[in-house]
Amino acid sequence: MTELEMMGVRAKAASTVLAAASEEKKNSALTLISEALVKNADGILKANEKDVTAAKASGMSESLLDRLTLTRARIEAIAAAVLKVRALPDPVGEIMEERTLYNGLELKKVRVPMGVIAIIYESRPNVTVDSAVLCLKAGSAVMLRGGKETINSNIELERVMRKALSDAGLPEDAVQLLHDTSRERASELMKMRGYVDLLIPRGGKGLIDNVVLNSTVPVIETGTGVCHVYVAESANVDMAVNIIFNAKTQRPSVCNAAETLLVHKNIADRLLPAVQKKLAEKNVEFRCDGASLGIMKNVSEAQASDFGREFLAQILAVKVVASTDEAIEHIARYSTKHSDCIVTEDKAEAERFTASVDSAVVYVNASTRFTDGEEMGFGAEIGISTQKLHARGPMGLREICTYKYIVNGNGQVRG
Amino acid sequence: MTELEMMGVRAKAASTVLAAASEEKKNSALTLISEALVKNADGILKANEKDVTAAKASGMSESLLDRLTLTRARIEAIAAAVLKVRALPDPVGEIMEERTLYNGLELKKVRVPMGVIAIIYESRPNVTVDSAVLCLKAGSAVMLRGGKETINSNIELERVMRKALSDAGLPEDAVQLLHDTSRERASELMKMRGYVDLLIPRGGKGLIDNVVLNSTVPVIETGTGVCHVYVAESANVDMAVNIIFNAKTQRPSVCNAAETLLVHKNIADRLLPAVQKKLAEKNVEFRCDGASLGIMKNVSEAQASDFGREFLAQILAVKVVASTDEAIEHIARYSTKHSDCIVTEDKAEAERFTASVDSAVVYVNASTRFTDGEEMGFGAEIGISTQKLHARGPMGLREICTYKYIVNGNGQVRG
Repeated sequence: MTELEMMGVRAKAASTVLAAASEEKKNSALTLISEALVKNADGILKANEKDVTAAKASGMSESLLDRLTLTRARIEAIAAAVLKVRALPDPVGEIMEERTLYNGLELKKVRVPMGVIAIIYESRPNVTVDSAVLCLKAGSAVMLRGGKETINSNIELERVMRKALSDAGLPEDAVQLLHDTSRERASELMKMRGYVDLLIPRGGKGLIDNVVLNSTVPVIETGTGVCHVYVAESANVDMAVNIIFNAKTQRPSVCNAAETLLVHKNIADRLLPAVQKKLAEKNVEFRCDGASLGIMKNVSEAQASDFGREFLAQILAVKVVASTDEAIEHIARYSTKHSDCIVTEDKAEAERFTASVDSAVVYVNASTRFTDGEEMGFGAEIGISTQKLHARGPMGLREICTYKYIVNGNGQVRG
Repeated sequence: MTELEMMGVRAKAASTVLAAASEEKKNSALTLISEALVKNADGILKANEKDVTAAKASGMSESLLDRLTLTRARIEAIAAAVLKVRALPDPVGEIMEERTLYNGLELKKVRVPMGVIAIIYESRPNVTVDSAVLCLKAGSAVMLRGGKETINSNIELERVMRKALSDAGLPEDAVQLLHDTSRERASELMKMRGYVDLLIPRGGKGLIDNVVLNSTVPVIETGTGVCHVYVAESANVDMAVNIIFNAKTQRPSVCNAAETLLVHKNIADRLLPAVQKKLAEKNVEFRCDGASLGIMKNVSEAQASDFGREFLAQILAVKVVASTDEAIEHIARYSTKHSDCIVTEDKAEAERFTASVDSAVVYVNASTRFTDGEEMGFGAEIGISTQKLHARGPMGLREICTYKYIVNGNGQVRG
């Protein structure tokens, strides 16, 4: 048995205890984790400093360094987020359906924990705690594989969380970090059939593709968002400009930011200059198709590859379409099935758009930025699924659970 | 673009039309398919004869030949099954949740079709029709890859179904069969990311393992069932014997048949002789652990590999356990998470068992044979999932759908 398989065995054993743990017990563990993070801030900051020093020496970019760096305030924010998860309703044990069959069998469909959830992620140490506590609250054990740049911070965070679990009377093996951050070990984790019930990659496209293509355990694909805003002929121009401004510029580095603007030809003359003026506030760069190039000023021509591209920056691809059908077809071709939006005053057209666009979240007259566990009322999220199996869109506590059927009889046999 | 990718493009296009099709339209297509099967029985039987002749020449076993062979009565049964699927409620469009968010956004979670579902299966031609009509009713296009032994029958069934779809005004590409039954083509199908939304293997363990290990598209693992019946100390012996008899012998070749009997040591002396007597009616062979070997007569000793083995025959592994915990541990180790049962008169013990056993369906005092779409009230099923992602247990129409969120606003942007 490999070292990772032994971790898997321990995780499975811990998951059994956790699955049977009461909400009170899980909540008290979360309280202790939250408190321990604040109490152990010095040690965590010290470990994090090692990571930051090494990252600087290796020439890590400013934005990644910022994601990696912890401060006392950030640790307090992470600790506060743990308490928010604690406050969410326990999804485990909920009776989803209940009925008596023709033969008197009493059938219940009950929400139960997933078992062992593995997470592969990149350089943000807050993900270590966020992911762990969501899994714990949902009754699952977690195996965490963070980036090598964060290893010292993560080892310290793991130590603190495991101690708190043990103090709460729960198995510390419910949280295990892979201290070996090699690619080989990550590949091995992706193939842990029978040990890992669900693997969630959190990070950039490269990481996610690697996990999806190489895993033999069930995976939920998260993340990549090529989100579209389509402005229909009947749209309210002011509303459309506001939505585009928010969807593109409020936080361009995240997956629910808009990447492409589609405009109906009969409103393009009015809309595009207004969009250009408003988005200039954030120095947005436009990549325009032929028709929009003729309407906007001093903008560059789009390459074919600019459509369907996740810029994650203040860049917006722009295309004029002849009809709503053309907009729907464009989205079908280029969307990553994350979030897409129509701005329209025509209700029938809105319904046609929401029925036809095959994305996790389809918006009418609202920013794509609302695709978020907290905004959508799930309390917290472990990621945003862009696949159609199991969960779509933000994944909260319920989405990382599964269910089972419990059938009570009095001797029924099949005829 | 490969030929298979072109099929994928056609399937995706057909799925878009199907997703928007009314229940009436889908039902009329199912009526036409059912009628066409009966009308074209001669042609189907002729094609099937070719397959049967070839299979006999190649030395196919009697039981497989029986699965492969169609008769007029079997075609009529398949046609009747189509009408049963037609009669089921349409799962598409159901509003699963609806709420207004703090900012006035109206959020709906709506059940929608999966899109394109691929099925890889073995030698039973009825699966061709069963799978296709379930997918059609659930609003998805289907790509079918049957065994090479069935290819002539399948081509004829495909032709009949496509013609009926076209007569109903629906795209015939909603049903496509891979005429090339090579392994290379099957492997290609498993890697059709972006074309196939869900791949379901139906068949034996070899097929399922191959699909699960090699697919890069989302898969639902079906099938293998190592089901346990555990008889607790307080059990009613007559009830236990009945349940074991039914679970083991009624149809031993299916996945919900029992393979292992676990017995509490304090009831073993009373139970095992009664089990042996009753199961002798079906000439069941017992493979016994040391303790049961001492109680039963003329039985053989179990090999270690007999536990956790899917015999699919009138063979039962038997083991005496010292406690319910030991039974739960044994099941955790050997069960395929399909269906497991406790026979007990102790309610608290039953609850502990159903809470602890991590299987799709957990029974108290009833045969494992009820794990079946029709028996459990789903109307029909496309397979029985043994994984925890997306669907567990029998998969009916709802289980082969996904959902999306539709969010209606009046200009909301994120603050």
